[in-house]
Amino acid sequence: MTTKFTYQRRVEFRDTDMAGIVHFSVFFTYMEEAEHAFLRSLGMSVVSIIEGEKISWPRVAAECNYRRAIRFEQVLDVNLSIDRIGEKSIAYRFDFLESGQLVADGKVTAVCCKINHAQPPQSIAIPTTIRLKLA
Amino acid sequence: MTTKFTYQRRVEFRDTDMAGIVHFSVFFTYMEEAEHAFLRSLGMSVVSIIEGEKISWPRVAAECNYRRAIRFEQVLDVNLSIDRIGEKSIAYRFDFLESGQLVADGKVTAVCCKINHAQPPQSIAIPTTIRLKLA
Amino acid sequence: MTTKFTYQRRVEFRDTDMAGIVHFSVFFTYMEEAEHAFLRSLGMSVVSIIEGEKISWPRVAAECNYRRAIRFEQVLDVNLSIDRIGEKSIAYRFDFLESGQLVADGKVTAVCCKINHAQPPQSIAIPTTIRLKLA
Amino acid sequence: MTTKFTYQRRVEFRDTDMAGIVHFSVFFTYMEEAEHAFLRSLGMSVVSIIEGEKISWPRVAAECNYRRAIRFEQVLDVNLSIDRIGEKSIAYRFDFLESGQLVADGKVTAVCCKINHAQPPQSIAIPTTIRLKLA
Repeated sequence: MTTKFTYQRRVEFRDTDMAGIVHFSVFFTYMEEAEHAFLRSLGMSVVSIIEGEKISWPRVAAECNYRRAIRFEQVLDVNLSIDRIGEKSIAYRFDFLESGQLVADGKVTAVCCKINHAQPPQSIAIPTTIRLKLA
Repeated sequence: MTTKFTYQRRVEFRDTDMAGIVHFSVFFTYMEEAEHAFLRSLGMSVVSIIEGEKISWPRVAAECNYRRAIRFEQVLDVNLSIDRIGEKSIAYRFDFLESGQLVADGKVTAVCCKINHAQPPQSIAIPTTIRLKLA
Repeated sequence: MTTKFTYQRRVEFRDTDMAGIVHFSVFFTYMEEAEHAFLRSLGMSVVSIIEGEKISWPRVAAECNYRRAIRFEQVLDVNLSIDRIGEKSIAYRFDFLESGQLVADGKVTAVCCKINHAQPPQSIAIPTTIRLKLA
Repeated sequence: MTTKFTYQRRVEFRDTDMAGIVHFSVFFTYMEEAEHAFLRSLGMSVVSIIEGEKISWPRVAAECNYRRAIRFEQVLDVNLSIDRIGEKSIAYRFDFLESGQLVADGKVTAVCCKINHAQPPQSIAIPTTIRLKLA
């Protein structure tokens, strides 16, 4: 599995908690920011209109393992790779490095869905236009 | 595995995102709120001073599976159970129910540590006073 | 000016930052939570459908003064009062008390708007059904 | 009053709420990020050790006026200027522009304090080393 994209993120003050370190929930927003930057790098957005339908990617699973505490103003490299592209979903993997050392790793599985504000998201096959860009 | 504690949480406006649903990262803060309320129910806090040492519980792993989108002002029951108490760590499990239906489930593993702001957290055996209260 | 509603809020771990205190931005979400609880106490929601239109209350101004640092697990009384109800807007005031002592105070001005996701919010006169409940 | 520093910030997904726009509380974290980037540009950090004392800048007042709703993936220029440097405090002003148009403006007053985790922050005269860099 090879890194497809690296997102660099400086730790902001609000990302920390009273333990003096980045709050564990914040790593999930870092993963999402990396994913969205990756999609932009391919000319896409996580929210798009395809053939008149609003398409987005709700998450069905997320996990993170924490190896070392990270602090304010440290800069993380978030290395994004793709574990698997299914018919309707993408499984991303993220390795967090600080000064070249692995400090955390996580996974997010996102499902391609039609979004209609009045209803639950409805999963669909990943449109070909998106699949081609991810390849 | 039996529920040891139920934490009730109403979805606040800031918990939502532009997809109109609770952001996936927010479920991790809900789990943590439930854990802290559980500890308070036992007369403890997630941060305590024991024999002059500051003790807290950094997380080493967290995961969540999402089954149904949750919206503003819905009320969740977060059922906390304990998967395992190790020498130095606790593995919690959380089931999220809305109107009696399972909408998400997650796990968090927290490690008992001495906290000293100048150094990384240092894992220790769970103090007996804490272990007795959890039993 | 008299308090119309009191919202009680315990400080959660994620509300704190590395300074060991509640982050200043979090007081604004506390104000909003108090406002929404106030509206619920009147049988309303901050987002409602009136005559087929989605009505909500974007903010045009917000401010807060901080008098004392607040810490994890402290419990705040957030006293909501109404400074002024205009044709299209409501100016709320919030006094934050901890153990009976004023620790912060803030203001939020919210404007009644039609919400249409494709367009900017459009301000409207506060509907009579809402105005009557607020009186 | 002249802009001393411009911080560029792309709106992330988590910054939005179910109204489809950036949540009003998030503008305060944007202001803080801009302030911290400004301090870094001068070779400083918002948390520093001076003559063995931990020095930081708790906020005593913050406000924001919102003129236009901002959405996911828009890029803001946050123009920082200094309204006033007092004996113990700095009053910052922030103008938010999107595509050259003013969309919000805010102010934050931060007070120079000794930080000691066991006690409330204690305000002090701004150290000369800091004052010189700000001039």
